[in-house]
Amino acid sequence: MTSRPTTSGGHRPSRAAARSADAYRDTIEALLRPLATRPVESVAVPAALGRRLAEDIHAPVDLPVFRNSAMDGYAVRAESVVLTPVTLPLAGVVAAGAAGQTPLPPGTAMKVMTGAPIPPGADCVVPVEDVHSDGATVTVERGRTAGEFVREPGTDVRTGELLARAGTTLAPRHIAALAAVGLATVPVFQPIRAAVITTGDELVSAGTPLRPGQIYNSNGIALAAALTANGVTVVSVEHSTDDPARFRALLSAATESADIVFTSGGVSKGDFEVVKDVLGPMGGEFGSVAMQPGGPQGLTVVDGVPVLSFPGNPVSTMVSFEVFARPILRRLAGLPEVEVYQVPLRNAVRSPEGRRQFLRGRLVHDDDAAPGLHRNPEAVEVVSGPGSHLIAGMAWADVLIDVPAAVTALPVGAPVRVWLL
Amino acid sequence: MTSRPTTSGGHRPSRAAARSADAYRDTIEALLRPLATRPVESVAVPAALGRRLAEDIHAPVDLPVFRNSAMDGYAVRAESVVLTPVTLPLAGVVAAGAAGQTPLPPGTAMKVMTGAPIPPGADCVVPVEDVHSDGATVTVERGRTAGEFVREPGTDVRTGELLARAGTTLAPRHIAALAAVGLATVPVFQPIRAAVITTGDELVSAGTPLRPGQIYNSNGIALAAALTANGVTVVSVEHSTDDPARFRALLSAATESADIVFTSGGVSKGDFEVVKDVLGPMGGEFGSVAMQPGGPQGLTVVDGVPVLSFPGNPVSTMVSFEVFARPILRRLAGLPEVEVYQVPLRNAVRSPEGRRQFLRGRLVHDDDAAPGLHRNPEAVEVVSGPGSHLIAGMAWADVLIDVPAAVTALPVGAPVRVWLL
Repeated sequence: MTSRPTTSGGHRPSRAAARSADAYRDTIEALLRPLATRPVESVAVPAALGRRLAEDIHAPVDLPVFRNSAMDGYAVRAESVVLTPVTLPLAGVVAAGAAGQTPLPPGTAMKVMTGAPIPPGADCVVPVEDVHSDGATVTVERGRTAGEFVREPGTDVRTGELLARAGTTLAPRHIAALAAVGLATVPVFQPIRAAVITTGDELVSAGTPLRPGQIYNSNGIALAAALTANGVTVVSVEHSTDDPARFRALLSAATESADIVFTSGGVSKGDFEVVKDVLGPMGGEFGSVAMQPGGPQGLTVVDGVPVLSFPGNPVSTMVSFEVFARPILRRLAGLPEVEVYQVPLRNAVRSPEGRRQFLRGRLVHDDDAAPGLHRNPEAVEVVSGPGSHLIAGMAWADVLIDVPAAVTALPVGAPVRVWLL
Repeated sequence: MTSRPTTSGGHRPSRAAARSADAYRDTIEALLRPLATRPVESVAVPAALGRRLAEDIHAPVDLPVFRNSAMDGYAVRAESVVLTPVTLPLAGVVAAGAAGQTPLPPGTAMKVMTGAPIPPGADCVVPVEDVHSDGATVTVERGRTAGEFVREPGTDVRTGELLARAGTTLAPRHIAALAAVGLATVPVFQPIRAAVITTGDELVSAGTPLRPGQIYNSNGIALAAALTANGVTVVSVEHSTDDPARFRALLSAATESADIVFTSGGVSKGDFEVVKDVLGPMGGEFGSVAMQPGGPQGLTVVDGVPVLSFPGNPVSTMVSFEVFARPILRRLAGLPEVEVYQVPLRNAVRSPEGRRQFLRGRLVHDDDAAPGLHRNPEAVEVVSGPGSHLIAGMAWADVLIDVPAAVTALPVGAPVRVWLL
């Protein structure tokens, strides 16, 4: 992308060839690749849900730790119960948690609870349901096999074996396994830290009455929510007026505290484009991506920190995030890929020539298909118009409909790709 | 489910008919239904991500708030540019954020920025790319239509129109719309609060060296992680010895602070079943569900608070949560349903007669199918064994394989339902 002159002079801006959305996303992905290597920190296992393992974790103990009973029942030697029925004297009780090191006298039975150590000398457990007991003796009705209902040490995992791989995003089942081997902490990657700077003299905060010409600032709050929902830690959300000194100061604080900075607004062809005016001279590339909404885009590296500059219309900001940031950030955070389906359109659509259009759509499901099973969407209908200011309309969407740049019209029933929001 | 006698006496326990897992889940769902009505609290919009709206939200303002420009360009009267080319004197500039109440003198143009108010009298905007300007005049090459590039107030949403429905789980796009209409706070339901009590003399905390017969407590940490991952706020995680007084004290604290209590262990047929021994006399129903793992289950209402008592084997606890709690809790929290697919088995499996078995499985995907598109799983392979103690093995699973109670064997290729973990 080439730098373009601002239009504050009296010249007609040149129509530089717009970059494709895919090419631009690839450029951003290459720029963000270093963020795949994150600093490592140690966190308590109970707090590690959703965090990403920084190292392979090997079991520090065997599981089971010791030979134990799979059932509430009676530990015996299998050879004592070859000829049945047989009545054996009861030699004791082993509770779960007992040290359980008293050997089983030959020809006897010991009562054992689930998880309790198998007494030395015993080699199988007869479940409590399968015996008669009078409290002093136990009568076994049928022969058992050595090893029955005995859990041998290390049969789940052995000391030193791989328990979870580096890069695993920790789900409850991983947390369970890490806790079961007695790990108190695990090494995880620090999440990516982002800062958000919105711009524009016209924006005011929620709760303030609007004066003529003013609107509420939604981009900062929306970008912060979108980043949080995709595994990124938001370290600051600030708003800048169109005063370059103010923007420069916020930018400097943002690049000091964050791994990536997002700006909104100030990148287009107006007279007061604070983001472009400040970042352009710092090496920023500002230009057009062949996409709607979200055409004007900027990309700068400031003190080693990537700064993604999205246009200020609220739908443009959100679509820019979905197309140029979310798939990459999810990959970096080890989260599942954005789901993309191909489904038929419920409405005919028109699209500008030469620009890939992302319309807001709502999935249609067939409620009668395969009850209880996951249903892929059956179709998609367009909600809201194509305008990049229709942010309330976007709340009714659950997908972006991806209309390729070469397509200018699609009939009802045409297959389209949809990106789940 | 009928209460069953404990087996601490010398009697053979009766084989009461085990309830089906579906029937038991329905009982729990009915018991938890009151939790659908939650207290309402007001939270700041930026903090409302993932929370569930308690009321319909109507727009307090029009969006757009005022008539504004969709482009950087020149506001004109369409009638001034009927005959083209035409050169109009430039009458001023309207920045975004300006009050913009100076009328457009007839036969002139005013420069306007995207989002800036359209001056009274103007009815269309000529984009900056489509004019020549020398700074004092602007030359328009072709005729325009009234309304072009003008955003009329209320065309996104009108004051009083529905913006988001009660029950909506707030995603970034909802947060964006709420912020755009200037709402500072929204009414949301309080999350369900859960307390967890694990039991068993044999359990010790991570970091403590194990003495003979002891194992690490994983159920508390694992249940807390599973609850958190499913929209529930965990207010406490405590461990009780097998001393009934200790358990009673923890239970009392838990029912005071939580809407639902989960216990693990102490529900089976051993001699020291603290959960069953305390809760049974309080009206708890303890018995068998025809399921493996997770057969022994208990359900009690203590001071109006449902107490779900899961068996203590770690896989039994996790599978009990997945089958009897997770689908219900997700529904109550407005989260998407647990995904269930039907896919062919990669391994032959055996299953006990009369008991529904949940094996741990791992999905197999065909990497070559439809690049870039969401892929439904192609097959499932069994990981780990059926034993309810194999918690490390469960970390390698991503689904539970649901083998119906009537099935005792399935060949390779048999279709099975799998529940995504």
